[in-house]
Amino acid sequence: MASFDLSPPSGTRDFLPEDAKARERVMRTIKDVFERYGFGPLETPAFERIEILTGKYGDEGDKLIFKILKRGEKAALGEVDFTLRYDLTVPLARVVGEYRHKLGAIWKRYQIAPVWRADRPAKGRFREFYQCDVDVIGAKGPVADAEVLLAVGEALATVGLPGFTIKLNSRNVLRGLMEAYGIAAEQQKATLIGLDKLDKMSLDDVMKELEGAGIAAASISALAADIGAADPAARVRDRVAGNATGALGLAEVDALYALVAPTLAGGAIKFEPFLARGLDYYTGQVFEVAAPGLNSSIASGGRYDGLVGMFSKDAVPACGGSLGLDRILLLLDEKAGARPPLGIPQVVVAVWDEAARGASLKLASDVRATGASVEVFAGDGDIGKQLKYAVGKQARVALIVGPDEAAKGLVQVKDLASKGQQQVPRAEVAAAVAALLAAK
Amino acid sequence: MASFDLSPPSGTRDFLPEDAKARERVMRTIKDVFERYGFGPLETPAFERIEILTGKYGDEGDKLIFKILKRGEKAALGEVDFTLRYDLTVPLARVVGEYRHKLGAIWKRYQIAPVWRADRPAKGRFREFYQCDVDVIGAKGPVADAEVLLAVGEALATVGLPGFTIKLNSRNVLRGLMEAYGIAAEQQKATLIGLDKLDKMSLDDVMKELEGAGIAAASISALAADIGAADPAARVRDRVAGNATGALGLAEVDALYALVAPTLAGGAIKFEPFLARGLDYYTGQVFEVAAPGLNSSIASGGRYDGLVGMFSKDAVPACGGSLGLDRILLLLDEKAGARPPLGIPQVVVAVWDEAARGASLKLASDVRATGASVEVFAGDGDIGKQLKYAVGKQARVALIVGPDEAAKGLVQVKDLASKGQQQVPRAEVAAAVAALLAAK
Repeated sequence: MASFDLSPPSGTRDFLPEDAKARERVMRTIKDVFERYGFGPLETPAFERIEILTGKYGDEGDKLIFKILKRGEKAALGEVDFTLRYDLTVPLARVVGEYRHKLGAIWKRYQIAPVWRADRPAKGRFREFYQCDVDVIGAKGPVADAEVLLAVGEALATVGLPGFTIKLNSRNVLRGLMEAYGIAAEQQKATLIGLDKLDKMSLDDVMKELEGAGIAAASISALAADIGAADPAARVRDRVAGNATGALGLAEVDALYALVAPTLAGGAIKFEPFLARGLDYYTGQVFEVAAPGLNSSIASGGRYDGLVGMFSKDAVPACGGSLGLDRILLLLDEKAGARPPLGIPQVVVAVWDEAARGASLKLASDVRATGASVEVFAGDGDIGKQLKYAVGKQARVALIVGPDEAAKGLVQVKDLASKGQQQVPRAEVAAAVAALLAAK
Repeated sequence: MASFDLSPPSGTRDFLPEDAKARERVMRTIKDVFERYGFGPLETPAFERIEILTGKYGDEGDKLIFKILKRGEKAALGEVDFTLRYDLTVPLARVVGEYRHKLGAIWKRYQIAPVWRADRPAKGRFREFYQCDVDVIGAKGPVADAEVLLAVGEALATVGLPGFTIKLNSRNVLRGLMEAYGIAAEQQKATLIGLDKLDKMSLDDVMKELEGAGIAAASISALAADIGAADPAARVRDRVAGNATGALGLAEVDALYALVAPTLAGGAIKFEPFLARGLDYYTGQVFEVAAPGLNSSIASGGRYDGLVGMFSKDAVPACGGSLGLDRILLLLDEKAGARPPLGIPQVVVAVWDEAARGASLKLASDVRATGASVEVFAGDGDIGKQLKYAVGKQARVALIVGPDEAAKGLVQVKDLASKGQQQVPRAEVAAAVAALLAAK
């Protein structure tokens, strides 16, 4: 054996069956909710042509894109043609550009898939992680935004994480605010980047960053006073009342709030006037979802009416939201404690001796036809060892056909939980096992 | 808009909802069969450290591995650290080496996931495609091999492709044969590679290749005579009867056949004495599954008792099989003709005017609670346009609340198939829609 490092690459993970099953269960639940909201599934390749991705995520983002070397002689030159998918939104924008005529005026899609970022791995930060995205393409109005928020909220409540808070804002509120503070257009991007760090850094440190970015002291102190106010939302409403962009933003937030709040179940929604969201491409409402027990957000999204137009002849309005699968699983694990048994296999068929192999495989096949998960013992060892194996795998039932039983057409059915056992006629074994498994 | 090529990278595909849904349906069916056979799910990263993959697939295979550039300054040097997964078997061997102590003496896992190969794209050959693998780790005997073959067969029958034939052989039959033909040990690999091409090339062309590889004329003519015989299996049985390796191979094939044939449903199994399989790592039984209407194989696998030992302190016996998802979908599409409607959304809730948005969202939410897929119309346009939209999306039902109906607490329920419509009290709409959808 060569001395390899056998762990998965730094920032990626192997999921053994218990974990893989838990992840799959949550993904299926989220899928089902998304489909009930009228979103259809989309699959895109793991990698994209390099020109599709670069320039979409800002300078910091571009550095985190995994690049794939060309094949053959070009490899030696270090040339790159493909990049691993960094998120699911830019591939969606490409897909809309490519298939616009097929998709209809309004198109609702979901995608649950891994993305890759060459970030420095840290607790809860991975280089390979799953996003669960819903987006509505082609709709300008707040009904689409409302359905995104309701779908995200229902997905969280359905997987078992009620009690969340949707924090809602609009980029237009922020633009109006910056106008009111007298922050020049060319400094607004730096201000947004600073505000986006408010959940990770202290107010003082963020303000120092803005100072460093050359923003006027008067602007900064007005901003800091509003953020630190007892009721920031009321302060912001006053602050932007007289400016058209700010008033538009407030109207967006209020209209969306009015649509979502009466129907939202399992959580709350509130106006969060300094919520910025990091990504460049948002144009209207933006949101983040906070869940009890988690410092970072569990879902986020917004309206991005400009992005699809980068890949399409026309500007196409769009909005969407994204759930973080890993954070959901983290919270569910903390809540539930130990995982339930995998349930694979539920039944182990012991093999008495070499001559009994065929009959054991046939017996397994008959029990499997009822829907049970059945494994025929495939190793070496006597019946005692085989029963131990079945217990180790957390199987519920073991089936044994010894020569005496075989002669009488009987099968020994062992309930591994109660330790009870019964001799059952061969033709009735499948039903007997089904009854044991149903009894739980 | 920049003038990008918006198609997915050559050899990869986008799957729009109809296709993505069909793929998911087949994957779920295969998963369910695998789990009923006692295989648990495994997930591994999309990429592996480069030293894990290289040297495992032969020279030709190594050239087809996608390589990922290091980040930061190393990128400029063209240095590579990771490679995209080329199959699911080598990552499995790594996982067994890493977690052996956790997995138990025998471990059955399945994995359904994409793999990437920088092959020249062609009809039916992709650079990103899914494999559906089952493997049994730690078991020497034919029971494990039998369960793999039965699981693969049942998966094919259950997705709707009965009528398959499992072609079975053993590497030991081939080794015995080559010994009988007097082919030297160092020429056996070239001979296996040649035999593996028999399903794509004529017998003459394969024999010419073997000639080119320096194999003696007498060996080649004996081989060609056996392949071309009326009953090659009988010829091979005679040919290897007197040699220990060949006799061992025949015993392996016969034992496995005897275990599988009586239980296998939906297909047949037969001895195919010249079946070689391309991959280096097989040591015992090998198989390929032929399906009616397909020239290439739809599934394949075998026993590889040496591979896991490359990543582990001990030699660990192993066997497995792999289904090709794309070929399965191709055959299913040819069989079924047109796809059934997506079923997303089943119901479209029309929005009478701006004031009705909130009530429409609430109505959608109530109908959704019965499990239906419901979309609230999010675009612009009068009720006529909205109904046209619903028909275009192949929805079954449209719901309309006009001002008159709203005043009376009624909802108009339109059956888009029969064109019938009824006015239903608001509280009874969810049940009325459920009844319509159940009526099909």
